[in-house]
Amino acid sequence: DHNRSLRKGFPEVIFGQGKTADQIIGIMERMKSQESIVIVTRIDETKAHRIADRFKDVEYHADAGMIIWKKTDFPLLGKGVIWVISAGTSDIPVAREAFLTAQAMGNRVESIFDVGVSGIHRLMDHRAEFDKASVLIVVAGMEGALPSVVAGMVGRPVIAVPTSIGYGVSLGGLTPLFAMLNSCSSNIAVVNIDNGFGAGYMASVINRI
Amino acid sequence: DHNRSLRKGFPEVIFGQGKTADQIIGIMERMKSQESIVIVTRIDETKAHRIADRFKDVEYHADAGMIIWKKTDFPLLGKGVIWVISAGTSDIPVAREAFLTAQAMGNRVESIFDVGVSGIHRLMDHRAEFDKASVLIVVAGMEGALPSVVAGMVGRPVIAVPTSIGYGVSLGGLTPLFAMLNSCSSNIAVVNIDNGFGAGYMASVINRI
Amino acid sequence: DHNRSLRKGFPEVIFGQGKTADQIIGIMERMKSQESIVIVTRIDETKAHRIADRFKDVEYHADAGMIIWKKTDFPLLGKGVIWVISAGTSDIPVAREAFLTAQAMGNRVESIFDVGVSGIHRLMDHRAEFDKASVLIVVAGMEGALPSVVAGMVGRPVIAVPTSIGYGVSLGGLTPLFAMLNSCSSNIAVVNIDNGFGAGYMASVINRI
Amino acid sequence: DHNRSLRKGFPEVIFGQGKTADQIIGIMERMKSQESIVIVTRIDETKAHRIADRFKDVEYHADAGMIIWKKTDFPLLGKGVIWVISAGTSDIPVAREAFLTAQAMGNRVESIFDVGVSGIHRLMDHRAEFDKASVLIVVAGMEGALPSVVAGMVGRPVIAVPTSIGYGVSLGGLTPLFAMLNSCSSNIAVVNIDNGFGAGYMASVINRI
Amino acid sequence: DHNRSLRKGFPEVIFGQGKTADQIIGIMERMKSQESIVIVTRIDETKAHRIADRFKDVEYHADAGMIIWKKTDFPLLGKGVIWVISAGTSDIPVAREAFLTAQAMGNRVESIFDVGVSGIHRLMDHRAEFDKASVLIVVAGMEGALPSVVAGMVGRPVIAVPTSIGYGVSLGGLTPLFAMLNSCSSNIAVVNIDNGFGAGYMASVINRI
Amino acid sequence: DHNRSLRKGFPEVIFGQGKTADQIIGIMERMKSQESIVIVTRIDETKAHRIADRFKDVEYHADAGMIIWKKTDFPLLGKGVIWVISAGTSDIPVAREAFLTAQAMGNRVESIFDVGVSGIHRLMDHRAEFDKASVLIVVAGMEGALPSVVAGMVGRPVIAVPTSIGYGVSLGGLTPLFAMLNSCSSNIAVVNIDNGFGAGYMASVINRI
Amino acid sequence: DHNRSLRKGFPEVIFGQGKTADQIIGIMERMKSQESIVIVTRIDETKAHRIADRFKDVEYHADAGMIIWKKTDFPLLGKGVIWVISAGTSDIPVAREAFLTAQAMGNRVESIFDVGVSGIHRLMDHRAEFDKASVLIVVAGMEGALPSVVAGMVGRPVIAVPTSIGYGVSLGGLTPLFAMLNSCSSNIAVVNIDNGFGAGYMASVINRI
Amino acid sequence: DHNRSLRKGFPEVIFGQGKTADQIIGIMERMKSQESIVIVTRIDETKAHRIADRFKDVEYHADAGMIIWKKTDFPLLGKGVIWVISAGTSDIPVAREAFLTAQAMGNRVESIFDVGVSGIHRLMDHRAEFDKASVLIVVAGMEGALPSVVAGMVGRPVIAVPTSIGYGVSLGGLTPLFAMLNSCSSNIAVVNIDNGFGAGYMASVINRI
Repeated sequence: DHNRSLRKGFPEVIFGQGKTADQIIGIMERMKSQESIVIVTRIDETKAHRIADRFKDVEYHADAGMIIWKKTDFPLLGKGVIWVISAGTSDIPVAREAFLTAQAMGNRVESIFDVGVSGIHRLMDHRAEFDKASVLIVVAGMEGALPSVVAGMVGRPVIAVPTSIGYGVSLGGLTPLFAMLNSCSSNIAVVNIDNGFGAGYMASVINRI
Repeated sequence: DHNRSLRKGFPEVIFGQGKTADQIIGIMERMKSQESIVIVTRIDETKAHRIADRFKDVEYHADAGMIIWKKTDFPLLGKGVIWVISAGTSDIPVAREAFLTAQAMGNRVESIFDVGVSGIHRLMDHRAEFDKASVLIVVAGMEGALPSVVAGMVGRPVIAVPTSIGYGVSLGGLTPLFAMLNSCSSNIAVVNIDNGFGAGYMASVINRI
Repeated sequence: DHNRSLRKGFPEVIFGQGKTADQIIGIMERMKSQESIVIVTRIDETKAHRIADRFKDVEYHADAGMIIWKKTDFPLLGKGVIWVISAGTSDIPVAREAFLTAQAMGNRVESIFDVGVSGIHRLMDHRAEFDKASVLIVVAGMEGALPSVVAGMVGRPVIAVPTSIGYGVSLGGLTPLFAMLNSCSSNIAVVNIDNGFGAGYMASVINRI
Repeated sequence: DHNRSLRKGFPEVIFGQGKTADQIIGIMERMKSQESIVIVTRIDETKAHRIADRFKDVEYHADAGMIIWKKTDFPLLGKGVIWVISAGTSDIPVAREAFLTAQAMGNRVESIFDVGVSGIHRLMDHRAEFDKASVLIVVAGMEGALPSVVAGMVGRPVIAVPTSIGYGVSLGGLTPLFAMLNSCSSNIAVVNIDNGFGAGYMASVINRI
Repeated sequence: DHNRSLRKGFPEVIFGQGKTADQIIGIMERMKSQESIVIVTRIDETKAHRIADRFKDVEYHADAGMIIWKKTDFPLLGKGVIWVISAGTSDIPVAREAFLTAQAMGNRVESIFDVGVSGIHRLMDHRAEFDKASVLIVVAGMEGALPSVVAGMVGRPVIAVPTSIGYGVSLGGLTPLFAMLNSCSSNIAVVNIDNGFGAGYMASVINRI
Repeated sequence: DHNRSLRKGFPEVIFGQGKTADQIIGIMERMKSQESIVIVTRIDETKAHRIADRFKDVEYHADAGMIIWKKTDFPLLGKGVIWVISAGTSDIPVAREAFLTAQAMGNRVESIFDVGVSGIHRLMDHRAEFDKASVLIVVAGMEGALPSVVAGMVGRPVIAVPTSIGYGVSLGGLTPLFAMLNSCSSNIAVVNIDNGFGAGYMASVINRI
Repeated sequence: DHNRSLRKGFPEVIFGQGKTADQIIGIMERMKSQESIVIVTRIDETKAHRIADRFKDVEYHADAGMIIWKKTDFPLLGKGVIWVISAGTSDIPVAREAFLTAQAMGNRVESIFDVGVSGIHRLMDHRAEFDKASVLIVVAGMEGALPSVVAGMVGRPVIAVPTSIGYGVSLGGLTPLFAMLNSCSSNIAVVNIDNGFGAGYMASVINRI
Repeated sequence: DHNRSLRKGFPEVIFGQGKTADQIIGIMERMKSQESIVIVTRIDETKAHRIADRFKDVEYHADAGMIIWKKTDFPLLGKGVIWVISAGTSDIPVAREAFLTAQAMGNRVESIFDVGVSGIHRLMDHRAEFDKASVLIVVAGMEGALPSVVAGMVGRPVIAVPTSIGYGVSLGGLTPLFAMLNSCSSNIAVVNIDNGFGAGYMASVINRI
């Protein structure tokens, strides 16, 4: 397994939520001898600093709640550009998780984080850029409409990521999740609520075929 | 009550689904002596013909599954134009129910039934027209994104109507309903799934203030 | 966009929940140069004081958990009176959010916050006043019956706002939401759970047509 | 057990839905030798006629979808009057099931089937009568508000019965069920959706204490 | 209204959860001049002591999280004995809330708090006592089977109270709630999850007819 | 795989619902050459007769909607007696499916199909017999309480089978399913709604250890 | 739009369910002049024959409930091989819909329809083949585990398709849908329940990048 | 009852969550005079130390959040070996609860806690061992696929335990629960979410037959 990981740049992931800094450090110690990339997701600042104190060679990304450790810098494995698109400021942590994962896996990644369906003309201005992407990751909470609209503008695969941001009938992200699965565009597939890591990973795997 | 109805053009409604033609005829007989408009919704062709045989002065609208009886032609009670917008062919019966209700209640009504969020540029072409409306009724199934997008294009009140059309996570219309309630536009309020009548009624009441 | 906002009094809103005081201040700084009204919702006392320290020209409304900043006092844009009605003391913050939003957007607003369906005669006493309203906002938790009852008493549009107050089968407000959507009155449309801001905004847009 | 039933007038019930006429006849044959009242609920006209052909001494009530067989006429076991109240014509079968069950169990029963919360003044006209009841059964679909309103008008126990009538977010009766359980009146308890039999039975048991 | 309350012993209730001690004290001050009984539910020890410091004439019941204030001692208004039955230690606070409410409303109340359906023989030992009750309140979490079993043992009305105690598919009490509504016994009606107050109130109203 | 099946009496199952008689016959033809037992579940009379015409050596059990084909009669593989217990007549088809599956897999099986929790003394009369069982299968719809009560009476493993029989909050069997999973007895495990075959299979596997 | 479709082989889709043969024929007539591929999904045999009578140049695939019309034979647009994998016979129609869509869009497609997670060794035998795929479409009902297991065996993107086949807690396909979204493999994205067309479309778009 | 418990090694369980250390100590004091094993589940370190200070003869297992008190060491009551299998580190507390319960009840227990369906070959390596088990307990969160895969590898009964570990559509463990109930393997039965104790208990009862 390790050989495969080293060659191809598949990362190992540690889901940080609910684990102590010590537990994460323990798992990282075991992994670092065998893996080429280790990604820790969903960690707060306190844990992150404890981990960064122990391993000097990690990058900590506060905006994504994420730590990345790489054995060496990665060669460019992905063929085209991956775009990461989101609307609201609240969706940024998930969008950044997707961005950093895709980047760590050897892709060129572009992003725009402030285009929403209630201001559709701004979105339209980016059409040409979006259409040149290899894969698009579209992150949205609320009514979850952004991936449908973006997918209708391009002939490329869209990975849709619902977020749990919202209140009332947001239902912890089930509403945008269902809306995305129910999209009237067909070049869309969906990952779990808030799963920026999975979206970045899936986009990377697609970008290598 | 009857005086109010005659003066103001508030219709009485008979929800036809689950009632026999005889039951509907019985209720209409009682109502016709007291009301100025009677609307029967959700009736199939067979029932409609039985009712039209009994009352020569009704209009039957097959595309909306609806019968309308009016004492006299209505004066124009609504101040501005009500627009009815929908995307898919499957949403047309609900959109037509809204259209005909608003029209029967004394409004000028315009409609467009083939603009969706996966072809956003077509929608943009209508922006100027939409913005001149007094109220907009936007009917959508699937991901329920159309009302959000339209509301973002205008400064007018939008009545959103989810439809039960779809499969899988459409959940009988709950997904577009929740998406509409979760809209990132604020000039939106929502009625029950498939409730074209209610949307037309609410838009009419708004258009009279 | 900014010009439109200045002319017409459409506010920008910052959903305060889950944002730090610093984040809110940052967003407000950008917005104040471009917008005529900025509304911050769902903020607690501590955050509110931090923001009020920074911007001396904001109003803080503790009962609504809301901060309002206006470039200048607003002209009266709405034609008629908007009524805000609620039953329980627990619904007051949401009702006040609706009240203040409508007022900030240039409307005359009246309110009554202690009439419920289990004491129906008190409600009946207000019938004449309610019927003179241009739009009514009705806020309710529990069984969510108040909007149906009020809508049955008037010929005006009712914006229904479910609240998340309750326990057991309140289901975080889903029960009053569904009850309101299922209303046997037709002059009703509904906004998201606890969305007092949206109700005030929608009522204002209606009151300007 | 049989002795108890004979003495006290507790009926046996056969839930007719999903059973063939032959199966029902078979069960009735066994029961008739041991019970004093047998009630069959939820049967359509065809089955009812087959059963009435076999047992000449049954009463068939088409409006309630119900057959009642009684060994002899019942003495009056209940102390006061039970009122059965409903709003819509669609709720009548459930309301009649409650009415006939309570009557068969030896109670004086009154009913009114056309008072709803969107016409609250009609309901108010009955306040004095309702307050003299021993127990009230209130049947409602849609938003399920009627039991709350009635319970607020009287100091008597109210048995609330939600019905499955409706569409969209009616959710097969879950919405009125939850609304009733969430009532702001406290003299209410609730039975299963469409369970007119259970409401009539419970009201009878209460009326005998 | 006040006169009625004084004469008949109907209490006013303050739902304490989510209110500050000061808010509760304010409401109590207004109510004490007009009501004969005021019940505060769902308050923790800290709030309770603050309230008891202010009003020396209240009783605080820590096991039920409840404060009761009565103008004078109550006459016995209920005709028979109300039994309150529960199984697990976790259900005791809800059972006690029902017990104290019924007692405050002028009823003789008996209780047993440790009989469950997995030890059915213990329950059977109490059959004779239960059958002499006027009304029975049965409180249960988990699978919610206790009310069905008790109702099968007696010919008296059973008020079933589901509790939110549990984990996994307890679903915050929805599972016992649905089980109770789905009971194969017919002398049962149900109140909201954890609503001990409502059960005690309803049982009292029944016991006065 | 085939050898294992022949030696040990593990059946192959064809879920008949939604398959045509021809499809079932086709699958059976392939299986009969390789398997020692083939069980077809959920088939109606018409399909069953078509299949029985084609294969003369099958047994058709109308009460369980089931066809069983066995290469030869089975030796007794199970060590003790398996009891199948259910309450209502509607649960019998599922209970019979469990019974026949367990019997076909080489077990001695006993059953009782008319004991319910609303008549608990009848259940108690069987305690001694139940306690001698090796495994008990308990089938129940409605409130799903029977497995808890039976499991509390014995020290043996209980396989609980919820049925979809019911209406309203039965929720297609979800209510008894959740109630069984939430049981206060610990010697219980649960299979899918209406899965009599699975219960019989699991009980057989247990009875062979 | 048409030019794009002709050049790139993007099909238009008509969701056949709920439409009459005449409606489908009408839509096809308009589309055939502008599109290069038209796919009709979810049509039964009767409708299919009506359509095939009208248009001699369509292919009807009974096993997928699908009609395909192509202007000309398609060039190979996809770079690698797309694999379509499913387990049960009931999942075949959905798997075939995916297969035929991908094939019509110009891809080499392979399939295997009888490998499931309860016979894991059979699946393992195909590992080498699967790993050479460009994209894999994995179709599963029941517990929805197949995509996770396959994704764990390969370094390629997996499009997971839940099916509505099942009973009880299958919940119309929600259970496999949620299981797939919750996968512990990260090279997975999911489409709507039974959406074979969408999976084939998305896989094709990926295979062209 | 006590005699039975002493002879057979049935433990009493105290569900520690939501109880104070003092409450648990009180219950243990009563139980210790009558029971042979007392198990306390779901307690944190602080409570555990308070209890261990009071009772010197308890074992505290921090990894399972569990305290076990035994009157004497237990004889081996179970006939074969019980295997406890889980995949993720997050599932270990539940798996350990099952392990320790089964061990305390007099069984030989083996475990492996790091085999998952996304690395299926590792699981296959253990096939021979698993097949020699008497009963297998399989603990899984996420997509809940592990029990299906393991059950397909052995001819032994599998007790499946879903865990609440996860996010998004994990739905607090409902997703793996439903997946397990929906398994295409038939030698599976399921216990409540996170119910390691119940699984260990049920496996023990099976292992004694």
